[in-house]
Amino acid sequence: MQNHFPTSSDILDARTRIQSYIHKTQVITNSYINSLVENEVFFKCENFQKAGAFKSRGAVNAILSLRPDQQTKGVATHSSGNHAQALARAAQLFGLPAYIVMPKNAPLVKIAAVKDYGGIITFCEPTLEARESTLRKVIEKTGAVEIHPYNNYTIITGQATAAAELFEQTPKLNYLLCPVGGGGLLSGTALSTAYFSEGTSVIACEPAGADDAFRSFYSGEIVPSVQPRTIADGLLTSLGTRNFPIILKYVEGVVTVSEASIVEAMRLLYERAKIVIEPSSAVPLAALIEGKVAVKGKKIGVILSGGNVDLATLPFCNKQ
Amino acid sequence: MQNHFPTSSDILDARTRIQSYIHKTQVITNSYINSLVENEVFFKCENFQKAGAFKSRGAVNAILSLRPDQQTKGVATHSSGNHAQALARAAQLFGLPAYIVMPKNAPLVKIAAVKDYGGIITFCEPTLEARESTLRKVIEKTGAVEIHPYNNYTIITGQATAAAELFEQTPKLNYLLCPVGGGGLLSGTALSTAYFSEGTSVIACEPAGADDAFRSFYSGEIVPSVQPRTIADGLLTSLGTRNFPIILKYVEGVVTVSEASIVEAMRLLYERAKIVIEPSSAVPLAALIEGKVAVKGKKIGVILSGGNVDLATLPFCNKQ
Repeated sequence: MQNHFPTSSDILDARTRIQSYIHKTQVITNSYINSLVENEVFFKCENFQKAGAFKSRGAVNAILSLRPDQQTKGVATHSSGNHAQALARAAQLFGLPAYIVMPKNAPLVKIAAVKDYGGIITFCEPTLEARESTLRKVIEKTGAVEIHPYNNYTIITGQATAAAELFEQTPKLNYLLCPVGGGGLLSGTALSTAYFSEGTSVIACEPAGADDAFRSFYSGEIVPSVQPRTIADGLLTSLGTRNFPIILKYVEGVVTVSEASIVEAMRLLYERAKIVIEPSSAVPLAALIEGKVAVKGKKIGVILSGGNVDLATLPFCNKQ
Repeated sequence: MQNHFPTSSDILDARTRIQSYIHKTQVITNSYINSLVENEVFFKCENFQKAGAFKSRGAVNAILSLRPDQQTKGVATHSSGNHAQALARAAQLFGLPAYIVMPKNAPLVKIAAVKDYGGIITFCEPTLEARESTLRKVIEKTGAVEIHPYNNYTIITGQATAAAELFEQTPKLNYLLCPVGGGGLLSGTALSTAYFSEGTSVIACEPAGADDAFRSFYSGEIVPSVQPRTIADGLLTSLGTRNFPIILKYVEGVVTVSEASIVEAMRLLYERAKIVIEPSSAVPLAALIEGKVAVKGKKIGVILSGGNVDLATLPFCNKQ
């Protein structure tokens, strides 16, 4: 299995390949938050990334890694989230069609964003079975290549570039905290850390209401995510079979946090750092607030995964 | 009158004087917003400034410009907004007491912020008369020096440093848009533009519901702000006698915008640029959205004045 892991050269090549098409996002610090959590925290702002999330890294890398004969028919995926937008945008950049299967109850703002990027949407019932069967039909009909949101090595390699950049932008980090959903960002982050920042420990952070990665990590087998309940809508999915072995090998631990801490962390970043993030991005800071990473005076990186949030229903808003 | 205007040397000296105590804030662009308004817009992010607003520039400059014998007794002001926080913070930096007169109905979050910075608060009735008479009593008792939020040349000079920085961070701007309340930021911006960016036109932007600067500018006499009604809570005050002559001489025009446009501009900056701003900061972009600055294809600077907003009542939140 390990032989298939993306290599350090793969990640360096991906950085070169995608650099004209993504932002090298900034890293911010905030003195109030540092005092509060008693560590020095470096936030990698993928909320400022193209299409509003780290997903643009993997999507661009995946498309540019296709063979020419694969590219002609376009790309396809099922997603109601950031991957859909990122893949549609990346395909549009290179003049490829992007076929996106979305559940018919997907938020209008996400549907509009995919359409804005020229994505060709097929709606389906809101079940995993319907999403997968509809995607198979779309692929049979179009000949498009499936680009899975996380269970795909070129996606993992693309997502790995965020941490690789971060290590160049900060002093040596003792810890790097990363949210975990399907494991695309986490597995990429873990690889980059192993290759480019020896001595930095990667900690995965997950909502307690969607703790399948926690249970998978400590049991050694993928435990599916069943009826997850969390505001962190990017972290609902189960780990991928390509992501899990990387995570088992290179991640030091998985911690879980409460919904209240996620909202508190989100509010802190809005109120003090003046940035807009989506709930999933707040999960690592929530772990620091809860003391789940029980260290003081350390240098801690945090990947803020994205900023695509429904502004009409922000959780700290209490307007009547 | 003109002889009293701060000079280019005054502004350059202020930059040196304050640089260790403030952020050199970044300038951001957003391709979606550029397409929408058909100009290239450069946002100067004073929402990321210390204490969350440009006011920290003036407050630090004012305190560091006091004679040593003036400093011993501390500083005083009446304010329920960003100046109160900025002055308290600046005074704390240099170990001076800051006496802040606040109306007793000031938002709790603003009171807490002033206290966090060590400000000594005296509450009063929520009228201008009560604020001024209470401030006089505080000054009589303490011997503190009054630092007016805008009608003060060292404040104007401090605020001028934001535009001076912006000109170094961007290509030559055709226009520079600035919100106007009391005129501290606007008069400083106008001076920096006249001194450091010849050929750039300064346009003041104001809510139609608080259009005293518009009426003052075009009548040539200060028209007081009477019962202003706007979400832009930083822009309620009347122009200062020291600010107005500078504005008349160096500002090209004043435009007004609707409340709906202010909210739309605010939402755009949250949704697309992923940054948190206060309503006052959205007023210049609202002017571009409304076509009040009727140009295309130009390079336009916008000063985002601050990011201190009540997150519980964001105007685009519609949670029930």
